[in-house]
Amino acid sequence: MTVYYYKDRFLKGGETPVPVEDRAFNYGDGIYEVVRFHRDRSFGLQEHLERLRDSAEAIRMALPFPLEEIESIVRSAVSQVEDEVVDVYFQISRGEALRVHPFPQTDPVLSLYARPGRIYTEDFREAGVAVITLPDERWSNCYIKSLNLLPNVLAKQAAVEAGAYEAVLIRDGWVTEASASNVFGYHDGVFFTHPANRHILNGITRRFLLRAIQKLGFTVQEEPMSEEFFQNEVESAFITSTTMELMPISKINQRELHPLGPESPVWQILQAFRTL
Amino acid sequence: MTVYYYKDRFLKGGETPVPVEDRAFNYGDGIYEVVRFHRDRSFGLQEHLERLRDSAEAIRMALPFPLEEIESIVRSAVSQVEDEVVDVYFQISRGEALRVHPFPQTDPVLSLYARPGRIYTEDFREAGVAVITLPDERWSNCYIKSLNLLPNVLAKQAAVEAGAYEAVLIRDGWVTEASASNVFGYHDGVFFTHPANRHILNGITRRFLLRAIQKLGFTVQEEPMSEEFFQNEVESAFITSTTMELMPISKINQRELHPLGPESPVWQILQAFRTL
Repeated sequence: MTVYYYKDRFLKGGETPVPVEDRAFNYGDGIYEVVRFHRDRSFGLQEHLERLRDSAEAIRMALPFPLEEIESIVRSAVSQVEDEVVDVYFQISRGEALRVHPFPQTDPVLSLYARPGRIYTEDFREAGVAVITLPDERWSNCYIKSLNLLPNVLAKQAAVEAGAYEAVLIRDGWVTEASASNVFGYHDGVFFTHPANRHILNGITRRFLLRAIQKLGFTVQEEPMSEEFFQNEVESAFITSTTMELMPISKINQRELHPLGPESPVWQILQAFRTL
Repeated sequence: MTVYYYKDRFLKGGETPVPVEDRAFNYGDGIYEVVRFHRDRSFGLQEHLERLRDSAEAIRMALPFPLEEIESIVRSAVSQVEDEVVDVYFQISRGEALRVHPFPQTDPVLSLYARPGRIYTEDFREAGVAVITLPDERWSNCYIKSLNLLPNVLAKQAAVEAGAYEAVLIRDGWVTEASASNVFGYHDGVFFTHPANRHILNGITRRFLLRAIQKLGFTVQEEPMSEEFFQNEVESAFITSTTMELMPISKINQRELHPLGPESPVWQILQAFRTL
């Protein structure tokens, strides 16, 4: 069951509310967030709402409602799904306007849906996922969670066709992040992940995991990993996102990584993350 | 008057046909073209259709109809507007699907509108337009005419706010193109424009102008201009697009360029272009 909201109302089944000259539809001129709920308890809703506000500021777009009102629409949608785990997607478009590039005078528009969350079984997680590496072909402002996701789509599809689960992106010889997740590596007692600059989206799960890693007393360096280090040196690696939480990597291109054991640092971090 | 078409039909006034989970709306996962008609005579419709096909191939998306059928829908839309000059916008989205990054199994969807063309008066053209230069922050596959246009929107808006008409984009010290047009410079008897590689969209008007320049016996080099050369050295410069045709540049940041006279090479080229 999926609940849809558009502009100022929840939709009836099959309704198509979006006009042909919507700025998100023609330009990808908008931003979005995905939040997971366990019953009525969200994972980092405040952080997601604040990042939405930051993304809006970065593309100089007003929000259609105050954050508190967006929060209440999100919670209302979640309550209508009635599943144990619910994922909510919400995006803001700059709105409907005659198609010319400069900002229009029209009001931005909230679209939202909520549906049962994609759950990964613990067996799936213990087995881990294969990744491939690909050139990072995206623009230079990846810190904005924008609707311009075509390069991410193409990278993810290439991964799937290569029999992998994710594409880890390489910019100028350095690992930035993956097509829809952040990337961590572990080597010789130290965790590495790309610093939160303009070349990555600073994931909410990434931020919570950094806290979990520090809480457990491990060393973490927010430094980019070179492609060579990531490909050949890391002992463990994982990707993180709202829907995956922490997902171990079992293979980087042709190199297999050791399977994840319950004694491993990565496993300990997942447990710590879940009790934050 | 604007005529709208979506998927398989022309729309009634005010209809909103697009679902919330359309791939163009959520990912900018699609491509587009803009074609100008003078009565029933198009400017380069075949070239635009072929570029649409090439863009679709580049993002590995099927077209919803053969090109001839898209052409007939375009012509039908134009005939309904009944103006002297009509601009047609058409885009293909990868279609509606539950939002996950990999390609869905669903069919791609054509959206289209046709409306009276934006006409620039000859006075406006003779006065020319001011441009500013900005960093080219786009992705590395700008040869694809995709719906991921947020960086173009932001650059155009910055130009407008600076009192200019266009933003000329600089990548690694070289002029690529502008936010919604190609860029030409003229210096010492030679025309320069960026080669049609992955860093620019190879405009149909650009291609026709190259022919006009050669037909008139001028030398043209498809070589990038350095930022310094463009800012300080060019004697004339202009931008090109379907709706502007050739638009002289009157100012590059703070430097004013000589006004365009009817004896100037740029003016001759515009006349030759119009009789191609």
